[in-house]
Amino acid sequence: MEWEAIQERLNSLLEKGRHGELRGAMMMLNEVDIAQYMETLDKEKLLLVFRILPKDISADVFSYMSAEQKQTLIESIGDNEIRALIDDMFLDDAVDFLEELPASVVKRVLQNADPEKRNLINQFLRYPENSAGSLMTIEYLEFQGRDTVRQAMDLIRKEGLDKETIYTLYIIDATHHLIGTLALRKMILASEDTVLADIMDRNVVLVHTLDDQEQVAELVRRYDLMAIPVVDKEDRLVGIITADDIMDVIEEETTEDFEKMAALTPSDDEYLKTSPFKLALNRIPWLLLMAVIAIFTGLIITNYETLLQDAPGKFGIILTACIPMLMDTGGNCGAQSSTLIIRGLSLGQITLKDFFKALWKEFRVAIIVGAVLFVFTLLRVRYLNEGADWSVAFVVAAALWCTIILAKALGCAMPMLAKKLGLDPALMASPMITTIVDMSSLFIYFTIASAVISRVPAA
Amino acid sequence: MEWEAIQERLNSLLEKGRHGELRGAMMMLNEVDIAQYMETLDKEKLLLVFRILPKDISADVFSYMSAEQKQTLIESIGDNEIRALIDDMFLDDAVDFLEELPASVVKRVLQNADPEKRNLINQFLRYPENSAGSLMTIEYLEFQGRDTVRQAMDLIRKEGLDKETIYTLYIIDATHHLIGTLALRKMILASEDTVLADIMDRNVVLVHTLDDQEQVAELVRRYDLMAIPVVDKEDRLVGIITADDIMDVIEEETTEDFEKMAALTPSDDEYLKTSPFKLALNRIPWLLLMAVIAIFTGLIITNYETLLQDAPGKFGIILTACIPMLMDTGGNCGAQSSTLIIRGLSLGQITLKDFFKALWKEFRVAIIVGAVLFVFTLLRVRYLNEGADWSVAFVVAAALWCTIILAKALGCAMPMLAKKLGLDPALMASPMITTIVDMSSLFIYFTIASAVISRVPAA
Repeated sequence: MEWEAIQERLNSLLEKGRHGELRGAMMMLNEVDIAQYMETLDKEKLLLVFRILPKDISADVFSYMSAEQKQTLIESIGDNEIRALIDDMFLDDAVDFLEELPASVVKRVLQNADPEKRNLINQFLRYPENSAGSLMTIEYLEFQGRDTVRQAMDLIRKEGLDKETIYTLYIIDATHHLIGTLALRKMILASEDTVLADIMDRNVVLVHTLDDQEQVAELVRRYDLMAIPVVDKEDRLVGIITADDIMDVIEEETTEDFEKMAALTPSDDEYLKTSPFKLALNRIPWLLLMAVIAIFTGLIITNYETLLQDAPGKFGIILTACIPMLMDTGGNCGAQSSTLIIRGLSLGQITLKDFFKALWKEFRVAIIVGAVLFVFTLLRVRYLNEGADWSVAFVVAAALWCTIILAKALGCAMPMLAKKLGLDPALMASPMITTIVDMSSLFIYFTIASAVISRVPAA
Repeated sequence: MEWEAIQERLNSLLEKGRHGELRGAMMMLNEVDIAQYMETLDKEKLLLVFRILPKDISADVFSYMSAEQKQTLIESIGDNEIRALIDDMFLDDAVDFLEELPASVVKRVLQNADPEKRNLINQFLRYPENSAGSLMTIEYLEFQGRDTVRQAMDLIRKEGLDKETIYTLYIIDATHHLIGTLALRKMILASEDTVLADIMDRNVVLVHTLDDQEQVAELVRRYDLMAIPVVDKEDRLVGIITADDIMDVIEEETTEDFEKMAALTPSDDEYLKTSPFKLALNRIPWLLLMAVIAIFTGLIITNYETLLQDAPGKFGIILTACIPMLMDTGGNCGAQSSTLIIRGLSLGQITLKDFFKALWKEFRVAIIVGAVLFVFTLLRVRYLNEGADWSVAFVVAAALWCTIILAKALGCAMPMLAKKLGLDPALMASPMITTIVDMSSLFIYFTIASAVISRVPAA
């Protein structure tokens, strides 16, 4: 059934007050879809539908709802309901949810959690945002190395229901240090009396609580993991992070890169839900910064006023007419190089050690690309501009070639230098590179033009 | 131990011919890391190390090697070794690998696979690239609805070792139609006599063989799946796709978006391994295309030659000096909008139905952003340019405001129109938008300038 049809049907059951059927219909849907349906409801209906949901799935549905709807709901339900909800949620989902709420609401929610859960949540809320600690969950199963497969299976049957994953077993020693992991599939294939220590994998890929989420994502992707264990400063196991949460991290980090590369202040908000004022605020500082840099570009042109206005024949106006093409091509060439370098850096395919290798590569690319565009530009300026001679065509084409080399060199070097300085390479993408290349390319342009014109006899 | 130290140690064991120790040392590493180590070896050493590896992990290591090293290795090993390798690989890895090889090598590999495997591989190679069919694997476990938990566990113990996942059970009817899935964790918790049909989940998220990989990734991400089943045209189960392969797809698609948005022909090759000539080839057509469009921008300037050269006082040179700032700001504004729209479209947060909503939002953002830059530009042109009066400052600032509105409208509308036309919205990113905005903004600029100058008394 199409999504619109499903939605219509649920709405019709809701309107008619056929709550039993509505409940039945919703139970046929995935929790993600129920959450999406709940996004469309107003406060009153939201509360009603939420209370109709079976208890065992309402916490899951709640995790998938948007921050706004979560808050609306929390503000309308009673303290007992809040307590039940928080108790049913996985710890990492509860922490994520609380991080998005205003302080007053957080206080009310925490007052209603049971003391043990409250302590845990408080502890998790202290990890820095975007750290492994803030992403992890404690819903995993721990085993001792001397446990047998039979004992392990019993524990899984007894306690596995509330865990985020039972597919990786984490094996610790007496002092809570992680000594190995074991895939459930491997354990199922072993005989019941086997001791876990004999079949566990001692070569564990792990992260520390304060590691950045980008590092965590890199490891999970690299080693194709379903979950990664998190240890504290003393190397004791304190949590795990599951692959589905990592996919969300990757999506978030990629969006952040896209935004920084377009000179936008990164934001977690969905576009259609963000106010125009907030959107404008994310854009204005960058535009102003680049407009300030462009003042210098303007000064270069003013500086060559005499050249532009007093040059013989059509020289001046042709030079002016070619400025946009020169600037656009420079900007585009810089954007091409910087994008490849930024992406390569973020995927770990390029490291700072490759600086000269990459620069040398970009230089050779620029020579080839420049040669093609040199010929194109030489011919088109000479033959498509009224009053153009070979000298002005040469000035434009030569300046373009130089600009391409410079743009590719800067597009390659600047993201790597930014990384070297501990800044995000994504800041050195198209807008910033374009602005800097513009300035330099106009300087090259007029220098070449002055040199050529001094050799041309006045008209 | 640091990666460099590990590598050095392996190299030293290799040099000294201590193969037993080398084998032992490698077995302590993850397959991904062994593959990375093998990337650094020349042909002879590569072959040697590959033969030292224990048989049960060599196929895994092989899957993680780069296309070049795989080919080098295939060309040096014997037919029997090829047969063993292909037999030990998961089918989806084998297909991926063959898709990257030259036809002659593929032929030799296929001749050496056992007939059953060869048929399967041939069948998989026929699915279009980037379709669900080309990504799927057949290493999953099928069950009947009437099977009991005990029977299912027996089958898992017997056949689970060679499957890509045993954590989701796929339940089919007599005609091979997928009727439900069951999470292993749920089954483990059920009593041994339970019939699978009673506890399975009938609400299955699935894809068809010809669905695009982007759709598959979208579903896996949306529903936090570990694996997704693939059915054929008659809705029969034919394969599954696991989440780790989906992460690779997401990475690949994101890189493609980054490349298209920077006016690059997308390429699967790693940057540092691609020749300058190939890199240049990916860039030249786009640069030429945009250079051609820029010819029209030049024509607009030539058209206003008289205005620029005969305007009273410093009017002409100030107008010229402000062209770069106008163009850059327009380009940057367009890039900001188009990036948000393209990303929103690709994450499914914005759909074509939101066209007018998004356009209206961008319009309001443009009004706010434009107002700030209007004031900034008015003041800076008036006071930072020698000989500038309020009229020329007004021309620049007003043209800038109009340009910002236009740039944001185009940046919002063009990616959505591209999508409507079945093109990739990523093509309508910064470079293309900038080129188009330049042309229009210069037109606005000179129109306003002409209007103003006709009211200013000659100096």
